[in-house]
Amino acid sequence: MLETAIVTLFPELFGEFVRTSLVGRAVSAGHLSVAFENLRDHGLGKHRAVDDTPYGGGAGMLLRVDCVAAAIDAAVGRMQTSPRRVLLTPQGRPFVQATAERWSRLPSLLFVCGRYEGFDERVRGLVDEEASLGDFVLIGGEVAVMAMIEATSRLIPGVLGNHESTKEESFASPDPETDSGSTFSLEYPQYTRPAEFRGQGVPEVLKNGNHAEIDDWRRVQAHSRTAERRPDLLSPSGRAGAK
Amino acid sequence: MLETAIVTLFPELFGEFVRTSLVGRAVSAGHLSVAFENLRDHGLGKHRAVDDTPYGGGAGMLLRVDCVAAAIDAAVGRMQTSPRRVLLTPQGRPFVQATAERWSRLPSLLFVCGRYEGFDERVRGLVDEEASLGDFVLIGGEVAVMAMIEATSRLIPGVLGNHESTKEESFASPDPETDSGSTFSLEYPQYTRPAEFRGQGVPEVLKNGNHAEIDDWRRVQAHSRTAERRPDLLSPSGRAGAK
Repeated sequence: MLETAIVTLFPELFGEFVRTSLVGRAVSAGHLSVAFENLRDHGLGKHRAVDDTPYGGGAGMLLRVDCVAAAIDAAVGRMQTSPRRVLLTPQGRPFVQATAERWSRLPSLLFVCGRYEGFDERVRGLVDEEASLGDFVLIGGEVAVMAMIEATSRLIPGVLGNHESTKEESFASPDPETDSGSTFSLEYPQYTRPAEFRGQGVPEVLKNGNHAEIDDWRRVQAHSRTAERRPDLLSPSGRAGAK
Repeated sequence: MLETAIVTLFPELFGEFVRTSLVGRAVSAGHLSVAFENLRDHGLGKHRAVDDTPYGGGAGMLLRVDCVAAAIDAAVGRMQTSPRRVLLTPQGRPFVQATAERWSRLPSLLFVCGRYEGFDERVRGLVDEEASLGDFVLIGGEVAVMAMIEATSRLIPGVLGNHESTKEESFASPDPETDSGSTFSLEYPQYTRPAEFRGQGVPEVLKNGNHAEIDDWRRVQAHSRTAERRPDLLSPSGRAGAK
């Protein structure tokens, strides 16, 4: 069971996410809970303002640390256990499979989503960890949180059914927070029916029933695909700078 | 105007995404359109099956190439312009800010979302490009598409209002598809009111009104923050392997 809460200005964005597909099933089955704290409820004045202009000038508005702190306190106060607090920011450590693995073993997580240009620097002092979904800029942290919850929740025991599996994945670049995690390679090519599609068939080896040969073929394919598409994943130093 | 279409088994997941916040505003203002093609409508038999077991054995089910091809053809047939076709897969090239920049200049994009264990290898032949959101495993491509549409649509002229800006971002690692794009650095710390929060103040330099000094401070801070948090971004070879 993983308990999560999300501080956000747009809780409605998550409506279908928590009801649909495997995430919805994980919630129904009690493997995952997702609560929301609307940052707007902690805004100031008649307009419930949560942002203000930057000291020193510049474009855009920043989320105020006092409003974010009040929202975090309210969210934490309603949780069963003290959560690990995660701030979504492009400046955070890149989220990778090993991050999902680490988080999937925690009792609870609190996510803080930014919007607008950014947030007051002191917001960083309110959290345990800063995470980034990747080297791109989103409008807010909400979709990043969905991706992180999805990647994390599928690793909780019981969430994936018998026909799904995490066994054959080798998606585990080191967690930049702990620098632990195995190496990573891409999956081998897979085929299903029809046996022929627009002139393209299925490799004979997959149809001959020789499982030792099939295993060998898949291992070679996974390695050569990784070498071709993501050579950085094969070199131990490839991502070493990204700590 | 960017026209997008999404082939998915879960179109309902996008309901609030296309109505909320800046993405919703971009759609209302005619800067972005998002259409859906339900893969299930192209399934086979009474149960509209879209997947089957892998040749050669193994866990899980794979999306069938014939069903995916039919869905793509139907979606493309309803679009105004011939789209660039993107397959979401962890084996794709990592999506970065330069990918968003390139896509934001296109007339149209079609996204193909996987679910289940994966898809028939021949699906790759149906698309122009394969994209990955990062080195982690999601349940399906839908949330990845949301992130990519969000990052891309905010770069379409007119989508961001006057108070927002993309100017001061330097989030542009090279696009792995084209290997173009400027270098990347993290943003400097920013502060807004209150001037004091739980004993933490605001740096004096930001309050003195000397803009040359403020600019210098921010430049130094951005560089030292990048050096501390993401040294890989400062080294020209840091991400060179990730092509």
